[in-house]
Amino acid sequence: MNGIVVGVDIGGTMVRAGAVEKNGNILVIDETTIQAGEGPKSGLERIIRLIETLLKKTDSRLDGIGLGCTGPLDIKRGVIQNPYTLPGWQEVPITSPLQSHFSVPVILENDADAAAMGEYWTGAGQGAKRLLAITVGTGIGTAFVLNGQIYRGLENCHPEGGHIPLDPSGPLCYCGANGCWEILASGTAITEQARQAVFQNPDSLMLALAGGELEKVDTSIAVLAARQNDPVACKVIHRAATYMGLGIVTAINFFAPEMIVLSGGVMKSSDLFLPEINKIVHQNNRMVPADQVQIVHAKLGYYAGLVGAAYSAYLQLQELKGN
Amino acid sequence: MNGIVVGVDIGGTMVRAGAVEKNGNILVIDETTIQAGEGPKSGLERIIRLIETLLKKTDSRLDGIGLGCTGPLDIKRGVIQNPYTLPGWQEVPITSPLQSHFSVPVILENDADAAAMGEYWTGAGQGAKRLLAITVGTGIGTAFVLNGQIYRGLENCHPEGGHIPLDPSGPLCYCGANGCWEILASGTAITEQARQAVFQNPDSLMLALAGGELEKVDTSIAVLAARQNDPVACKVIHRAATYMGLGIVTAINFFAPEMIVLSGGVMKSSDLFLPEINKIVHQNNRMVPADQVQIVHAKLGYYAGLVGAAYSAYLQLQELKGN
Repeated sequence: MNGIVVGVDIGGTMVRAGAVEKNGNILVIDETTIQAGEGPKSGLERIIRLIETLLKKTDSRLDGIGLGCTGPLDIKRGVIQNPYTLPGWQEVPITSPLQSHFSVPVILENDADAAAMGEYWTGAGQGAKRLLAITVGTGIGTAFVLNGQIYRGLENCHPEGGHIPLDPSGPLCYCGANGCWEILASGTAITEQARQAVFQNPDSLMLALAGGELEKVDTSIAVLAARQNDPVACKVIHRAATYMGLGIVTAINFFAPEMIVLSGGVMKSSDLFLPEINKIVHQNNRMVPADQVQIVHAKLGYYAGLVGAAYSAYLQLQELKGN
Repeated sequence: MNGIVVGVDIGGTMVRAGAVEKNGNILVIDETTIQAGEGPKSGLERIIRLIETLLKKTDSRLDGIGLGCTGPLDIKRGVIQNPYTLPGWQEVPITSPLQSHFSVPVILENDADAAAMGEYWTGAGQGAKRLLAITVGTGIGTAFVLNGQIYRGLENCHPEGGHIPLDPSGPLCYCGANGCWEILASGTAITEQARQAVFQNPDSLMLALAGGELEKVDTSIAVLAARQNDPVACKVIHRAATYMGLGIVTAINFFAPEMIVLSGGVMKSSDLFLPEINKIVHQNNRMVPADQVQIVHAKLGYYAGLVGAAYSAYLQLQELKGN
């Protein structure tokens, strides 16, 4: 009987799980809502049921479980400390109850780190000695994989590259900085910018596409209108792409990575952003060999997190064998 | 007979060398001018003579040589490629001739990396798992020591944290970016800002301290005047400190290091800058545990580079023994 690891990606809305073979192959996938508001006990039960359902669909031996979860987390103790996107989940031990229930090693990773490991293992970042992953969605998250290992900050904390200050004249973010990367170039920022632009230019195609309702204008609408050359939308996208470029320049100056992998909802339209991003990267960086940095799109999509969580679990199983 | 390693710090003006024991103790130090303009052949001879003079002053066995040098360099091939601060030194093999002459292993490091390794070994950064070194002088350089090893970028390149963009409304730097860290907060930037401020405010104490000559106003004068509470000078220093703080916030967000070690000519007056730096760091960063990042002053001063170069040589000797 072949051994598998179950990778689980715990988000604010959905839990996704997959049975992943040692070579990175996904045998079967399933998902459910987390219903975070019903509390951690019910959430944990939902996760256990999801894994059990998954295991019934394969006739493989469960060797370990890897969890990727939206942070903050204490990965060392295996505890979720995230009342922000999982309301009520202040201090929730997650690895130990799963370990007890399934009698296998369980590891916990930040979801951005897990997704980066997934791309490193079987996605776009295979073989990159220095891989920076940037996720642009509601917020902006970064993760750095160095020699196949997640880079961790002091006390094992997850660095927050999305909150580097890029423009002191920018708006104030909840991180405390004016004009950090996230407040300038995330999906939330683009939505905000698009609404302001429509308010000032009601003849923009964006308003028509939103059925005339300002509050329905968002990043998707801005992308759609920019594809139809609406000048107001193009300006909004161009502005966000410029800041994305500046954020990437900063990352290149500090890490000089072989590869940068872009993912997240906004980056599904990366073709719209990349021309300006590339222009900014090459204009603003003559010090490190920016030409050699590959900027590519992620390959694993929604599944990067669970694949990477499974990979981290495999790495830990190897370590346990070694000792 | 005890073995020693000679650490050499090759700058644009001076070459410093020291005989360094295995425990980091410096036995003897000497220095000479590099006379870079007389060409690499003469420079190499000066370096050889300096090392020989040094060796005569100790009765220790030479086990290896570590070179720290102002970049760009090709550390793998042991070649200096720096016509900028060493005019005429376009493609100068430096490790191989020294290896032939002294019959010991010779390694080459970027000078900022070497200085960071020195601080890690016997200076302010001892034991820090993640140590970021920031040198603020004519320019701004950064180096990152991870688990006691220099972090290197792709193709072994030296990352250039001093050129991260911090303010798009800032002046254009030779790196290609508007408002990079160096163009906003280096000694050169402070001098430029001080002169502009004096030009607009000729009653500033700075002009008096410079004997009435605008072109003699520089960072030292600005520091001196700020210490005497000249409001114009205080504003110049405050502005630079704000940008230093923003640069440090960026570094903390990406690396979350245990320690940041500040060095370089400007940072000799770090007491003037640190209150604003600390304010900015804590205001702009609620995402990673910035409170746990120690921001300290370097301890080894001028000798950090040669000590760190010696340390890198010791590490390589260990590796050679291991294989």
